[in-house]
Amino acid sequence: MSGLAALEARIQLLEDEAAISRLIASYGPLVDSGAAAAVAALWGADGVYDVDELVMHGRDEILAMVESANHQGWIASGCAHFIGPPVVTIAGDDAVAVCHSLMIVKQDKRFVVRRATANHWRLRRTATGWQVAVRTNRVLDGRPESPALLGSGFDTP
Amino acid sequence: MSGLAALEARIQLLEDEAAISRLIASYGPLVDSGAAAAVAALWGADGVYDVDELVMHGRDEILAMVESANHQGWIASGCAHFIGPPVVTIAGDDAVAVCHSLMIVKQDKRFVVRRATANHWRLRRTATGWQVAVRTNRVLDGRPESPALLGSGFDTP
Amino acid sequence: MSGLAALEARIQLLEDEAAISRLIASYGPLVDSGAAAAVAALWGADGVYDVDELVMHGRDEILAMVESANHQGWIASGCAHFIGPPVVTIAGDDAVAVCHSLMIVKQDKRFVVRRATANHWRLRRTATGWQVAVRTNRVLDGRPESPALLGSGFDTP
Repeated sequence: MSGLAALEARIQLLEDEAAISRLIASYGPLVDSGAAAAVAALWGADGVYDVDELVMHGRDEILAMVESANHQGWIASGCAHFIGPPVVTIAGDDAVAVCHSLMIVKQDKRFVVRRATANHWRLRRTATGWQVAVRTNRVLDGRPESPALLGSGFDTP
Repeated sequence: MSGLAALEARIQLLEDEAAISRLIASYGPLVDSGAAAAVAALWGADGVYDVDELVMHGRDEILAMVESANHQGWIASGCAHFIGPPVVTIAGDDAVAVCHSLMIVKQDKRFVVRRATANHWRLRRTATGWQVAVRTNRVLDGRPESPALLGSGFDTP
Repeated sequence: MSGLAALEARIQLLEDEAAISRLIASYGPLVDSGAAAAVAALWGADGVYDVDELVMHGRDEILAMVESANHQGWIASGCAHFIGPPVVTIAGDDAVAVCHSLMIVKQDKRFVVRRATANHWRLRRTATGWQVAVRTNRVLDGRPESPALLGSGFDTP
């Protein structure tokens, strides 16, 4: 690679990491504002969002979760989906990221931590930018699969 | 643009995003250490910090908040202003960022979440770097303006 | 410096900041997954991890902490070492970073904040990348050294 091409490849990698970190950081503010279509658009058309109690396939099911009475109830009573800084590993057009998240809710006039969760993200580069392929969340409540999910987040995609 | 100029523009954007993320991440450690002048210097001379119960105009009022008996009391009893990773959108010399924050305090020998807050930042590039123009915080306690504030944090500045 | 060399220096600084942020963000997911060797490898061979009740010298002592019955008990009952976005300051082959962390644990079927902590990191560039030289943690429970530790995290290394 020429000097210029080598520098461009390094810039591209930094841009990819920044774009993926931004995508992941967007989830909390978007879902807590009820921006259902924008939340769904973080995923690819065939994207999967797998949480403990529910597996959503495709944007329509993710959008429906945000618009559900259950989720709207959290917004109406006060909640924050607080997502930590992710560790991102990129290999070409695929990436893996891992981070923690906290769901903080207002309850009986106090804020409480409803859950602390392991987040594992598989992402894919598309013509319109990075999108979530599969996001898997497991509550860190002692079940062995949650620490294992965190540990698997450092594998090369 | 020549190849070199195009690369430089991409580097500049990454540097701007990093500088703004750093500025926002600085707030918590600075305010929890009582570094009043350094906190105030994050804002421009005519900067505004608008929290639910108080609107501060200019650095002197922000500095006075950090030095107030109220804030010093939080430090003395134990507190963390924990700020999440921001989503930053830059357009030339203006930027918008959005994130969550948590105020964690020690109370009766336990740590509790005193509040979870929507943070909306307007920033401006100056001769000495990026500064806060307006920071608006609203507690995520169910009032509709707080989710709306989060949702407005993705608009182009 | 020629145009190309000047750009490369700016890219290198962005890469260094990204590498250090990634290292710090890795600690939580690694320690909560019990990946003892990977946690220890974040430190240099002579690295120090100084927490309130314990000072660990070198990787073996850090590894032993992760493998201890105490830490394994936290994993088995449910815990998240949630680390905030760091403020990183680099000078050549040395760096300082500062951030907050929260330890969230499951207790009596609820999640609680066991502690909020000031984190101060000294890092060093090695042939195999950035490593932790000294990490100092102090609980933000009102003791004056904890705010002072946060405030010292902005000094040039």
